[in-house]
Order: sequence, then structure tokens, then C-alpha cells
Amino acid sequence: MINIAIIGFGVVGSASYDLTIRNAGLIEKKVGDTVKVKKIVDIRDFDDHPARELLTKNFDDVVKDPEISIAIESIGGLRPAFDFTKALLMSGKSVVTSNKELVATHGLELLEIAERNNVSYLFEASVGGGIPIIRPIKQCLAANEFEEVFGILNGTTNYILTKMREEGLPFAEALKDAQEKGYAELNPAADIDGYDTCRKLSILSWTTFGKFVDVENIDRKGIGDITAEDIEKAKAAGRVIKLIGRAKLTDGEVRCTVAPEVIPLGDPLAMVDGVYNAVVVRGNFIGDAMFYGQGAGGEATASAVMSDVIEISRNMVASRGRV
Amino acid sequence: MINIAIIGFGVVGSASYDLTIRNAGLIEKKVGDTVKVKKIVDIRDFDDHPARELLTKNFDDVVKDPEISIAIESIGGLRPAFDFTKALLMSGKSVVTSNKELVATHGLELLEIAERNNVSYLFEASVGGGIPIIRPIKQCLAANEFEEVFGILNGTTNYILTKMREEGLPFAEALKDAQEKGYAELNPAADIDGYDTCRKLSILSWTTFGKFVDVENIDRKGIGDITAEDIEKAKAAGRVIKLIGRAKLTDGEVRCTVAPEVIPLGDPLAMVDGVYNAVVVRGNFIGDAMFYGQGAGGEATASAVMSDVIEISRNMVASRGRV
Repeated sequence: MINIAIIGFGVVGSASYDLTIRNAGLIEKKVGDTVKVKKIVDIRDFDDHPARELLTKNFDDVVKDPEISIAIESIGGLRPAFDFTKALLMSGKSVVTSNKELVATHGLELLEIAERNNVSYLFEASVGGGIPIIRPIKQCLAANEFEEVFGILNGTTNYILTKMREEGLPFAEALKDAQEKGYAELNPAADIDGYDTCRKLSILSWTTFGKFVDVENIDRKGIGDITAEDIEKAKAAGRVIKLIGRAKLTDGEVRCTVAPEVIPLGDPLAMVDGVYNAVVVRGNFIGDAMFYGQGAGGEATASAVMSDVIEISRNMVASRGRV
Repeated sequence: MINIAIIGFGVVGSASYDLTIRNAGLIEKKVGDTVKVKKIVDIRDFDDHPARELLTKNFDDVVKDPEISIAIESIGGLRPAFDFTKALLMSGKSVVTSNKELVATHGLELLEIAERNNVSYLFEASVGGGIPIIRPIKQCLAANEFEEVFGILNGTTNYILTKMREEGLPFAEALKDAQEKGYAELNPAADIDGYDTCRKLSILSWTTFGKFVDVENIDRKGIGDITAEDIEKAKAAGRVIKLIGRAKLTDGEVRCTVAPEVIPLGDPLAMVDGVYNAVVVRGNFIGDAMFYGQGAGGEATASAVMSDVIEISRNMVASRGRV
């Protein structure tokens, strides 16, 4: 049996738990062993949850449990996620995360700590929710010199822009609708002003070019200034406005920008509507390849988190056979 | 140094060779060792090719060379590719292929032979050319119970249907244009009648559901009957006609069909035009994810072939360190 822990039992953490229950049979088949959630850490109470007996408020219960070999960090934010992740890796546990802020800020350091401790730090879920992006770029397209990677990386802003276009709404009303539907936070600045896209772009740029670009050094423009007239003008010209994160390699330097762009309808990114995300990567042999799907939401993100857990578990099972 | 061989020096084989030269630096960096083409097998003469000194007409020169650890099979078709692949695997060499006919027909048997001989048989390039599909489904989406996989798997028919829609051409003229541009064979039946899509669908179904569906058992309808009027009628209704391969799991059984379908413009597959391909996979947590790109052509296919070679090479380098 492979024991895992979930640190942070919010939307992603609880969907990941659900996945381990609902898809237990297929996970066992793919891993060659059962994968079971042994402990869940959260400071909140979940007295009515079926997993209530696994819950603890004490992080040490996980880090000091030698039977737990993989932890899902789904707390989000920098603190305490950073300290927790370091402690987990240094105690010989692999960590899987959907935390884009942490990966964009301390990913390099955490990967080095993982390597020194002979464990894994995987973060497929940190960009594009459940859409396979990180591993396809690193493995399936490994033979390419990359020129550019770009895409629609934030579902909230894409929902708002889609709503404005389809219903002719002004920005404020489309934002209000997104907030009512739970697609936008009450304080929507992280999405609207492009910070969230910057974080994901930083991770994408690092994955694609092997070069780390600090989020602070990304040229950033959000969608708050876009008017119904801008959208209408684009529409009349057969175009749509999308918030695009773009990392481009020029003379060995990676330049990252986040800004609204006007895109012709024939472009594959033009049809990426609502809360969907898509990433295009351009390589010298593949040309353009695009990955498309739900960029957020508990279930889609849990798909990526648990696929990373399965990957690590498979490797653990395979290495048992080795001398 | 990791020595590889290329068996079949046509469009895919020669593009793969070009990739090893043009992207040699990045391959060495990613693998941690140089990867070099040592021999190329083809019955034709290539006296003016820069690689002419690597060419041999004798397959035994590769199979008996203990220094060659990976072979690219880019002959296509069943014979002699099947016998060659068996011989390579049984002599302890990993094989990477773009040969959809061989994988769809004998893939299961070849994978078993590879496993018994402790080598790899990889075929990312056999579906969707360079588009990452096989590994994303098997690894990045491993946590999902899959319900369905479908898509536009043949660039020739998609080019013809796109041409008919955009220019109002009848089928015969659009086919002629495709032949003149080199997108369709002089005898176009394998594409037009849906056989090529059936082969790729068989591989996709096997990858997604772990169930092998014989190409002969796939309900198949090609695009030869589609008229300019059909296209026009669909267009007037805000729809497009696409040749879709579809594998669906119902009550534990996989049902595969290949047929033209009428698709609404809002559907992500509707914007997949010309020689581009796209595959949608539907899982119980991810929802729909789509992979899009060039489904054929030497360079795009070489991207997938050489990424598989890099994967095997990395594992070889990693296993050197193990006791």
C-alpha cells in the first residue's frame, strides 16, 4: 500500500480525496498497488465529512509519519505552503502541488531540495488546471528547440471577456456575473489585473525554456480597462479580445508579457471561451501544438494532481523490484 | 554516446535524421549524453545525401550491431516492418515508430516482445503525427476513468473538407487540389475511405481504454459521398462537416466508429481546419481535454519520434547510475 497525505482540504484537496475513492480501482490497476489517503491536514473542522477520521490540525502528524510517502500540497499561497513543502521534501516525501504562486516563486529551490532528497516535486496542476501541459512540453516535445509559448491561462478573465462579447455587457456587469457564479473572487485583482496569468506564465516559461523569469519582471496589463466598445470593434473586424500570457525567446533571452490581445477568428485560441484555458507551444519541428481544457475547478485540477501521484507511485512500485 | 539507427529513410526517417543534426545540442543537454545516428537502412540509393556514409541496404548491419541501442522504424506498412521490429526488439534494442498500420495490427504482440526483452516499443508518432496524445492520455490523465475519445485524425480528408467549405468546390476538385499539393496520394482510398482514421482510432482506443479493437471491426464510412450541397447545407445551419473517429465505452464495451459528423461552430473541433488534427478525450474528472497540432508531415512526426528516442535515452543514462 502507498500512503498519501493531503495538506489543505479546500476545493482541490477535497476533490483529490474524492478521486482516490471514486477511481480507486483504476488507480490500483495502473500503479500495481493500492494508493490510500492516510491523513488530511487542515485547520478547519469537517465533522460531517466521510473522511473526518483522517483529519488532523497538526502538520507534524504527516511529516513525522514514516508510512506516508507522498503529500498533496493544496493549501495555496506562499505561507505556510513553502515551509510545509520544504519540511515534507526534507523528510523524504514526494510532494505534488497545484500551487502556482509557490511554484512560480520558489519552484527552483524546491526542485533542488527534492533532488537532494531523492524525491519528486511535481506541479502539472499549477498551470492550466487539469490540462496536460508541463509533462507534454518536457517529454513529448523534448526534441524541439522552442521559440514561443503562449495562451489563455486564466479562466476568470476569459469568462468575463466571453460574457462581454456574447451579451454586449460592460466590464463591471460581466465581472459581477462571474462573481455570482463563483468564477471570480470578491477581490478579483489577482485575476483581473493579470497576476495569476503572470504566475502561470513564469512556470510555463521555465518549463519551456529552462529559464526562470521572476513574476515581477513580466510586463503586465490586465483587462480592467476593456470596454464594451473595444469588444464590439474587435467583433466587427472578425476578431476577439483575449488576455494572453506570452513568453518568447529572442537572441537567447526570454521576454514575458501578459496583456489583452486582439485575435482573428481563425486562430485556434479564438474559440477558447468561458472558463476554458489553452496553451500553444511553438517548436522548430512540431510547429504549433495546442493543449485545451478546463483550466480550473476542483475535479479538473484533481485529475492533474492525482495523475502526478500515480506517476510517483508507479515509480515507487517499479523501484521495489530493483536491487 | 547513445547510437541509434533509422530503418526506412523516407519523409519521416530523413526528417528524424535532420532533427538529430539540427537539435544535437539540446538533445545532448536533455539526455546527458550525445545521441548519434550510426546507421540508416534503406534499399534506395542516397548518393548525394550528407548522411550517405551511414546508409546500408542490409538490415543485419543494424540488428547485429551491439553498439546500436535504439532503432527508429519509419518504413511504414506491415512487411517487412513487422519482422524487422520483432528482430530488433529480440536483439535487445528499443524501437520507436510512426507506423500506425503496424501498431494497429501487431502493437499488442510487439509490446509483449519488448517487455520480455526489457526494452521499449514507443509509438507516440503513430497517432496525430507530432501532437502529444499517447503519453498525455496514459500519464497526465492517468487518474481518470475515460468515457470517450474522438477527433479529427486524418489531415488529407480534413484538408479536402476544409477546401470544399471555404471555396465551395465539389469533392473531386478538392481531392485533385490535395493531390497536387502532395496532401493526398494518387490512390487516395486509405485516407478518403477512412481506413487511416480507423488505424489511428484503434491505437487511441487501446491507449485510452486498454481494450484492443480490430480495425476490421470498426464501423467505417468515408467522405467520398459528401457533396458541395451537403457542405453548403451544414454551413447555412452554422455547422461544419468533419470526418470523426470516435471510441466510446458503454457498459464495459468499446464501440468504435469512423464517419463524417455535422459539428456546430462553437465546438472546439469545428475550428480544426486544413491538415491539422485534434483529439478530444473525456474523463470523469478532467472533463474534455483537447490536443491540437499538425497531424502529419516529416518535421512534426520527427518531433514525436525523436522525443520518444530522448525518453528512452534518458532512462538508459539514468539506469547507468544504478547498481
